[in-house]
Amino acid sequence: MPLPPGVAEAQFAQALKEFEGVVGAEWVRASDIDAVSYTDAFQLVPAEELLPAGAIVPASAEQLPEILRIANHYKIPLWPVSRGKNLAYGGSAPRMPGTMVLDLIRLNRIIEVNEDLGYAVVEPGVSFFDLYDHLEQHGIDLWMSLPAPGWGSVMGNALERGVGYTPYGDHASQLCGMQVMLADGTQLRTGMGAMSTSLSTYLFRHGFGPSWDGMFMQSNLGIVTQVGIWLMPAPEASARISIKVPEESQLAEVVDTMRPLRLRNTIDSLATVASPVRQAATTSQRSEYFTGKGAMPRDAVLDMIKTRKSGWWSVSLSVVEAEPVVEARVAAIEKAFNEGVKGAEINIRRWRRGDPIEQSGRPRPGLGAFQMLNWRGGPGGHVDFSPVLPPVGRDARTLYELASSTFFRHGFDYFGGFIFGQRYLINTSVLIYNKDDNEMTTAARACFNELVVEGGKRGFGGYRTHLAFMDQMANQNDYNDHALLRVTEAVKDLLDPNGIIAPGKQGVWPAAYRDRRGT
Amino acid sequence: MPLPPGVAEAQFAQALKEFEGVVGAEWVRASDIDAVSYTDAFQLVPAEELLPAGAIVPASAEQLPEILRIANHYKIPLWPVSRGKNLAYGGSAPRMPGTMVLDLIRLNRIIEVNEDLGYAVVEPGVSFFDLYDHLEQHGIDLWMSLPAPGWGSVMGNALERGVGYTPYGDHASQLCGMQVMLADGTQLRTGMGAMSTSLSTYLFRHGFGPSWDGMFMQSNLGIVTQVGIWLMPAPEASARISIKVPEESQLAEVVDTMRPLRLRNTIDSLATVASPVRQAATTSQRSEYFTGKGAMPRDAVLDMIKTRKSGWWSVSLSVVEAEPVVEARVAAIEKAFNEGVKGAEINIRRWRRGDPIEQSGRPRPGLGAFQMLNWRGGPGGHVDFSPVLPPVGRDARTLYELASSTFFRHGFDYFGGFIFGQRYLINTSVLIYNKDDNEMTTAARACFNELVVEGGKRGFGGYRTHLAFMDQMANQNDYNDHALLRVTEAVKDLLDPNGIIAPGKQGVWPAAYRDRRGT
Repeated sequence: MPLPPGVAEAQFAQALKEFEGVVGAEWVRASDIDAVSYTDAFQLVPAEELLPAGAIVPASAEQLPEILRIANHYKIPLWPVSRGKNLAYGGSAPRMPGTMVLDLIRLNRIIEVNEDLGYAVVEPGVSFFDLYDHLEQHGIDLWMSLPAPGWGSVMGNALERGVGYTPYGDHASQLCGMQVMLADGTQLRTGMGAMSTSLSTYLFRHGFGPSWDGMFMQSNLGIVTQVGIWLMPAPEASARISIKVPEESQLAEVVDTMRPLRLRNTIDSLATVASPVRQAATTSQRSEYFTGKGAMPRDAVLDMIKTRKSGWWSVSLSVVEAEPVVEARVAAIEKAFNEGVKGAEINIRRWRRGDPIEQSGRPRPGLGAFQMLNWRGGPGGHVDFSPVLPPVGRDARTLYELASSTFFRHGFDYFGGFIFGQRYLINTSVLIYNKDDNEMTTAARACFNELVVEGGKRGFGGYRTHLAFMDQMANQNDYNDHALLRVTEAVKDLLDPNGIIAPGKQGVWPAAYRDRRGT
Repeated sequence: MPLPPGVAEAQFAQALKEFEGVVGAEWVRASDIDAVSYTDAFQLVPAEELLPAGAIVPASAEQLPEILRIANHYKIPLWPVSRGKNLAYGGSAPRMPGTMVLDLIRLNRIIEVNEDLGYAVVEPGVSFFDLYDHLEQHGIDLWMSLPAPGWGSVMGNALERGVGYTPYGDHASQLCGMQVMLADGTQLRTGMGAMSTSLSTYLFRHGFGPSWDGMFMQSNLGIVTQVGIWLMPAPEASARISIKVPEESQLAEVVDTMRPLRLRNTIDSLATVASPVRQAATTSQRSEYFTGKGAMPRDAVLDMIKTRKSGWWSVSLSVVEAEPVVEARVAAIEKAFNEGVKGAEINIRRWRRGDPIEQSGRPRPGLGAFQMLNWRGGPGGHVDFSPVLPPVGRDARTLYELASSTFFRHGFDYFGGFIFGQRYLINTSVLIYNKDDNEMTTAARACFNELVVEGGKRGFGGYRTHLAFMDQMANQNDYNDHALLRVTEAVKDLLDPNGIIAPGKQGVWPAAYRDRRGT
């Protein structure tokens, strides 16, 4: 178990004792097993590269100033996690070995849900399951937007810019009103909440003067302890549409068909376009189709498609609105695909208020998404290359050709797809590996690294990334000698002179540890 | 003409000479008439309180580093304005006398308009007229969103969080991708633009790591020299709906009827609810209805309403979408008002693609809004109290009763209304005065001051304000001893140690001039 850099064992022991004085002995976890339980569950890199010195699990935000005081005094870096379930990007592991995880899971109050105005106010430890149950138990007629697994933090996911598949699917954009603690223990409220009497803290995003909210996203400038997040009023009707597209070569026409629909909000939710293996992995394993070494050859993929009666590409989208609006939109979507994508098979499932809610497409948290980890057999892990690109057919094709050929060359089945925003695509190219297979894990890293480099050359920057690649991705943000990163680091040093909050997060290093920046 | 604080005349003369060396002698304006022409056109406070030392009008962003170098050397504060036409909030005048206006009106390139992806990239000097003409001349099928007067800056208006009346009416939320120059001459790009090869600079708002965009809104932390701004694809159909509501007492039911429509996007654009005088002032003058002293009595307002055949409240909203969607929404809106607002008279004007564009409600820049300045006679000025409040009937009534009774007591006709966002209302209570009437101008200031204080007590914070009230409004943001303002000022001192960019803007003062903070 590593010590915090530059901290002697006796000093560290003293710090732990003081932390225990704040949160209680049982909530300071510093054994080997604790360290391991907080590290990267998917073991993308050797464990020692991401091993914490332990964890502190406070009971409330009120304990944070004292924890921060001790951390500043002993120079103990802290890695705040809300619930730490973002496994593809490193889970609860810290970027720098010897950082202590500050696990906010016990800050789990749902402080308010306002049904009339469509928002919730939550602490970091509130999971999608928790909020869903709360809405159910209180009969609150609001829908959540969810990522694939439901055990993560509502707040943490939004701060990290996670996505869901409703009109509220850009989760970061639904945040309104934050309570944040700075490294010196100062608590502030952003936006309208800066006025202590404000009635509009969770309603109006902008506030008066410069707006800080974005500065606390994917950030180590403060510890967010509460957020307002907008929830969608339950719709009157919905249609869930899935479309089979027969040929690999049709990606560009799919994207060019969807772009105007998405830009005009005819498709009003984030939509997805999934590759064959991505479709197959939700219900089956690779061994059912192919047992050879290396990536599945094209013939095997074609056989699999035939067996599964799927398309090459599968488009999933939903429309949620008043019923006549849904019908108008569905008609426009059908027409566009029939005209624009040859051989598209369109399947539509309609729901209206009063029908069984299970048919509505209302997002419901679950853990089924982890089925995909079984694709390769063995204990599975995955790491996601997640570049942003324009919703333009030729760009999607360029990215796909790069990603799929790179996957193939490194022995991985192309598992990926596109998340379709209003003016952007996020590609997620998911490397699934058997964690027990060193060779495969090494290949995953090499493949990922190549994708970052080659993607960057073509103008595809990442919107988030695994801990092990944060520096590389930050380094790509090279405009004017990394001016944006330099100014962010200057602010980091101002607000956190000892560099105790999340050193290295998203490539932002405090002065104290700046020599640890990777390449 | 005031000198910059602490700068001797000879030093100032030397600085001007150096500025001339950069931009040319004709673009450094430092005569008395120049100073006056840049001060507050509406003369809300005595001219000397807002008088600049002159103005510098650079030709391009490339001249800024040298201008900033000189300004830092001689400690000459600069007040950047895009076009300086935001007259109700102080126009191009600086907050601190002796600041030089940095007039960016010549940075007027429309760098790109992307019709397929719905955005424009503009410099600060591009007006709504300019961009509108560009779209017209090139037959680009995108709609703009506009504030009332069209001579202002597209960029400046969005940075200051101005509004329009389309689905893109929250202009700040349409910004995506900024180019900014810091006080030390460092140029940076925010969001995806931080990667110099990025294809998604104007498409994906979030970027990698902390997001800076909000920090440059209503801000003095940098000089924004370029922005991407999203434009709406021209719709297939529209309906413009105006609704007369007979009684003053019906405000709460109007708001409570509209809230769910707005929250569900049944009304998909920013809508307005206008008071009787606000309606009347667009086409007539007060003297046609009332010639007495002080505020119009209630009887005179009722007579005016009768004469004009208007309602007490006038609701204006539009729906823009595909035709069947428009029809579905119009029906839902009609039903809600018929059920929720007794005596509501609903007028609907429909347009579909192919009909004359003038009937579409497509926003078109103009200057007609200034007609309202004639309401009181004499050379008119106005100042707007603009608090944010929840879209809840009882809150709207509380605000309205406060504002209208305060107006009345100070001798002003209540001219105001509500801008209806998705989860918020912005009230604009507009004090129109005769600039030549000292007594009336003094009363306007007193009335405004009272509204800020009493509004604050009731939880109504401002979303922007006139220069003369910036400190007062910033001071209301009192949470944890003004923690948010303190941290913003710490960043200000870090990025701009000499405090040369826009000292005092939105109450953010650099160390060099912090003793000038008002109350």
